[in-house]
Amino acid sequence: MSDYTLSTTVRQPYDATVAAVRDGLTEQGFGVLTEIDLAATLKAKIGAEVAPQVILGACRPQLAHEAIRADPSVATVLPCNVVVRSVDAGTTVVEAFDPAAMVSLGGTQAADSPLAAVAGDARERLTALLESLT
Amino acid sequence: MSDYTLSTTVRQPYDATVAAVRDGLTEQGFGVLTEIDLAATLKAKIGAEVAPQVILGACRPQLAHEAIRADPSVATVLPCNVVVRSVDAGTTVVEAFDPAAMVSLGGTQAADSPLAAVAGDARERLTALLESLT
Repeated sequence: MSDYTLSTTVRQPYDATVAAVRDGLTEQGFGVLTEIDLAATLKAKIGAEVAPQVILGACRPQLAHEAIRADPSVATVLPCNVVVRSVDAGTTVVEAFDPAAMVSLGGTQAADSPLAAVAGDARERLTALLESLT
Repeated sequence: MSDYTLSTTVRQPYDATVAAVRDGLTEQGFGVLTEIDLAATLKAKIGAEVAPQVILGACRPQLAHEAIRADPSVATVLPCNVVVRSVDAGTTVVEAFDPAAMVSLGGTQAADSPLAAVAGDARERLTALLESLT
C-alpha cells in the first residue's frame, strides 16, 4: 500500500483476520506488547467514524535488544506495528511497518550493519506472517 | 540523535523526566495510549540489561484522524513514540519519532499535502514539549 509498509489483502472478515494475525505473530516469535483499537479510540475521543482497525504492537525481544544496541534511537519505532483494517464484510487489509524502512530512515546504515541484519530478520518473519494469511 | 527523531538531553533524573514528559504531552494535547517499560520488558523476556527507558505512545486524536484519512498506511507509525531513556543518575534523554520522517517515508507527499500539514502540526507540538523540558 505504501513504500514503508508490507501488506496483504485477505478475503476474510475482520475479526477472523485479527485472530489469524495474532496466531501468526506468535508463530513467528513476536509478542504483542500494545494494542490500540483505533476506531474505538477515535470514536470515543472525538466522535470520528473510521473503518474497524486495530494497531498491534509486535515485539521480538531478541531483535529489539539487538536493534537498540545498534542504535538507541530505534526505540522510537518500536514495537513493530501491524495494522489490521476492515475494507468490507469479507475483505481485510493487514499492513505492517516495514523494518527495512527503519534502516533507510537511519540513512547511514550500511547493508551489512548490525541494524540491517536485525531489520532483515524481522522483515522475513513479517513477510512469512503475511504470506501465511492468504 | 538521529535523522528521524527529535531529541533533547535533560539534566534531571529519569523518574522526574518521565513525569515532566507526561505533563508536557498533556499540555500539548496528546494522550498516552500505550506505554512500554522497555528495560523491564527485555529483562523479563530475555534477561537483557539495558538502561532504564520507557516508550510512551502519544496520540492527538484529531491529528491521527486527519493523518489516516490522508493515508491509511500512516496507522503503522501511530501512535507517535516518545522515548525517555536514562543516561546517568542526573541525565536523561528524551527522543521522539519526528513526524516529518513520516512524510518523507511516504516519498511522494508534496510539502503542502494534507499529511504534511498534520505532520507539521504534530512536529511543532513535540518540539514545544522538548523545549519545555530544558
